[in-house]
Amino acid sequence: MLPLSERAAALDGSDVLAPFRDRFVIEDNLLYLDGNSLGRLPKDTVRRIREVVEQEWAHEVVLAWDRWLDTGTRIGDALAPLIGARGGEVAVCDQTSINLYKLATAGIQATGRSNILTDGGNFPSDRYVLESVASAAGGRLILAPDDPTVGDLEPLIDGTVGLVALSHVSYRSGAMLDGAAITRLAHDRGAMMLWDLAHSAGAVPVQLSEWGADLAVGCTYKHLNAGPGAPGFLFVRADLQSTLDQPITGWFGHKDQFGFADDWQAAPDIRRFLVGTPSIVSMAGVEVGVALTAEAGIDAIRAKSIALTSLFIEAVTPLTSHAVAVITPLDPAERGSHVTLRHPAGFQIATALRDRRVIPDFRAPDLIRFGFAPLYTSFAETLRAAEILGDIVKSRSYESFPDTRHGVT
Amino acid sequence: MLPLSERAAALDGSDVLAPFRDRFVIEDNLLYLDGNSLGRLPKDTVRRIREVVEQEWAHEVVLAWDRWLDTGTRIGDALAPLIGARGGEVAVCDQTSINLYKLATAGIQATGRSNILTDGGNFPSDRYVLESVASAAGGRLILAPDDPTVGDLEPLIDGTVGLVALSHVSYRSGAMLDGAAITRLAHDRGAMMLWDLAHSAGAVPVQLSEWGADLAVGCTYKHLNAGPGAPGFLFVRADLQSTLDQPITGWFGHKDQFGFADDWQAAPDIRRFLVGTPSIVSMAGVEVGVALTAEAGIDAIRAKSIALTSLFIEAVTPLTSHAVAVITPLDPAERGSHVTLRHPAGFQIATALRDRRVIPDFRAPDLIRFGFAPLYTSFAETLRAAEILGDIVKSRSYESFPDTRHGVT
Repeated sequence: MLPLSERAAALDGSDVLAPFRDRFVIEDNLLYLDGNSLGRLPKDTVRRIREVVEQEWAHEVVLAWDRWLDTGTRIGDALAPLIGARGGEVAVCDQTSINLYKLATAGIQATGRSNILTDGGNFPSDRYVLESVASAAGGRLILAPDDPTVGDLEPLIDGTVGLVALSHVSYRSGAMLDGAAITRLAHDRGAMMLWDLAHSAGAVPVQLSEWGADLAVGCTYKHLNAGPGAPGFLFVRADLQSTLDQPITGWFGHKDQFGFADDWQAAPDIRRFLVGTPSIVSMAGVEVGVALTAEAGIDAIRAKSIALTSLFIEAVTPLTSHAVAVITPLDPAERGSHVTLRHPAGFQIATALRDRRVIPDFRAPDLIRFGFAPLYTSFAETLRAAEILGDIVKSRSYESFPDTRHGVT
Repeated sequence: MLPLSERAAALDGSDVLAPFRDRFVIEDNLLYLDGNSLGRLPKDTVRRIREVVEQEWAHEVVLAWDRWLDTGTRIGDALAPLIGARGGEVAVCDQTSINLYKLATAGIQATGRSNILTDGGNFPSDRYVLESVASAAGGRLILAPDDPTVGDLEPLIDGTVGLVALSHVSYRSGAMLDGAAITRLAHDRGAMMLWDLAHSAGAVPVQLSEWGADLAVGCTYKHLNAGPGAPGFLFVRADLQSTLDQPITGWFGHKDQFGFADDWQAAPDIRRFLVGTPSIVSMAGVEVGVALTAEAGIDAIRAKSIALTSLFIEAVTPLTSHAVAVITPLDPAERGSHVTLRHPAGFQIATALRDRRVIPDFRAPDLIRFGFAPLYTSFAETLRAAEILGDIVKSRSYESFPDTRHGVT
């Protein structure tokens, strides 16, 4: 077999997505492997944000609302095919935790059961929100083992569980769950199924309709490259929309928003899950990020993602003798687009990597995540990052960095 | 007395805020009187948004979170003096309706009473949200007469009312309520007091601390000129912060956000009312809008606002013989920075005004609002708008526009 360096060069040479790197602003000499936390800036976003601010807002001021008003559902329709949903089933709005709160509350209310099932490895913000939602309904949050299989979940879904809420790709391990089988199990047990697609949207193909999923939320600032803190999205299956009531009844969810009726009457469609005025400048980043992903094609993105993560795993595997553990599934079909390594000195190693301009991120207590963004990450970069990591781990140069913990990202 | 045109010219000549007009991008020939819906674009915002997007995001990517993380509380501290609050009592985050939901839920939970009192003239989104919050607590929303006085409210605050929630300046009538007296009344009756400052912040001096207010929410895209859909803000009095629990327990509210503990533990301070990742690009607009307002000074803004609204009211008063009614209080001490007129053909008149490049807004069923932004509205513009309105009303030229209702803004 060819040496890794030659294989990386060959993979870059035949990479159909390679031209997309030039669609991003990359002027920083960072070996950037944290697109799973914050994606890079697309050049079209520079143009589009300038247009929204310096043309639309500047010259039309309030009159521009004629074109802005349906932004959340318009971009939602563009995003829908990327997650296997249909037009009218997705809206871009609010932050992921707020969307999760709205849909989880609506979901368990509809089932009349008060417990929620998630897994111990789910993102802390998700767990905190789900716990509050269950508790407010008189129930509790039940934790399955991290990155659960159908077999792990099966004994836990009894008649008290109204909602199964899981991250499709784990922020920690990068493990990807079986969306179809778990959704089927939840339904068989009379529970609703909610997927958090924060680490899936734009990174792996998702088939919400095919799975029969009820609800989903997700993030746009990771693999969709929409910009820091850009609004999240939510999905509600079409046939459920008119039957679910979300708790935050703001005017964008009213069936006649500008009628200013005395009473709340929910819109009959996806708009009922909206709340207030969307942040139009941030929405511009979502619009471009979604369009760029659609242009590249989610299947091409997934194919390159698998090749990138496979190369990285192969390159770091020799480091296992230096206390590095790969905690991401080795089977590509079972992982998303980041690879997580564990090392007792994880924080110091992440700091040492940053010092050498390699940007992964650190997750307490001892995890280093390397995210691979097929639209702008090359195979050469991927290999180079693994090599620098190898230098740091083998030389123990990380020991010269203080263990202050809790990085910011 | 001098003719209105000469007085307007004299007022413009002695206007200490006149130089601020040049701090905005104004290239549209609109006679713009809708800053109470969407404020104009400050030139500094063009620069600052470019900097955030094209420098910070582009060149630092995720590393920029080191500077972005406290954005909501940092801008909140800058905003605090504009509403008579102290540092550590204000955060910029989410949308107004979501902030209202969070604080109203926390408020009535703390009092152990389940009814909420507002007024029939409060913004529909506020009424819808408050009704849901009361209902979820097993109570109901009680409606006082529009633009209530202490005397109107007094008989309605019995032992079942946990929260009095009112807009300080009415979106409809422009009436400004007595913040000190109403807060005192609420407290005398054992209720908490929540103020919606959407039409106050940046337009009129607000004295939350002096009033003893418990809670407040507000909007930044109106008189603070922060941009379309920019995040709102919330205020929680310092001594209450550690005692209130808001329902949406996201990671930005955790006392150790990056500790990723299993359990929710609320931050001891204003951060506990945050939820998720703030929209950094939109925050840039808030930062500039707040700074510009602080630079001009809220007292100077208020003085000019009173002069502008007084001139406008005087100029349109002769139109009362043509079925135009001024529904905004004539006493300047009792109004904010917009003037609302009622006319049976309000929608058509608003359309006719737009056709002549005068931009007020229409609120169903028959109200036309004219907003005056002291940082960029001149007295000459104010008078010109009244003259064009007079032409339209007297000539009945508005009759040639269809009555399609529900404008967008």
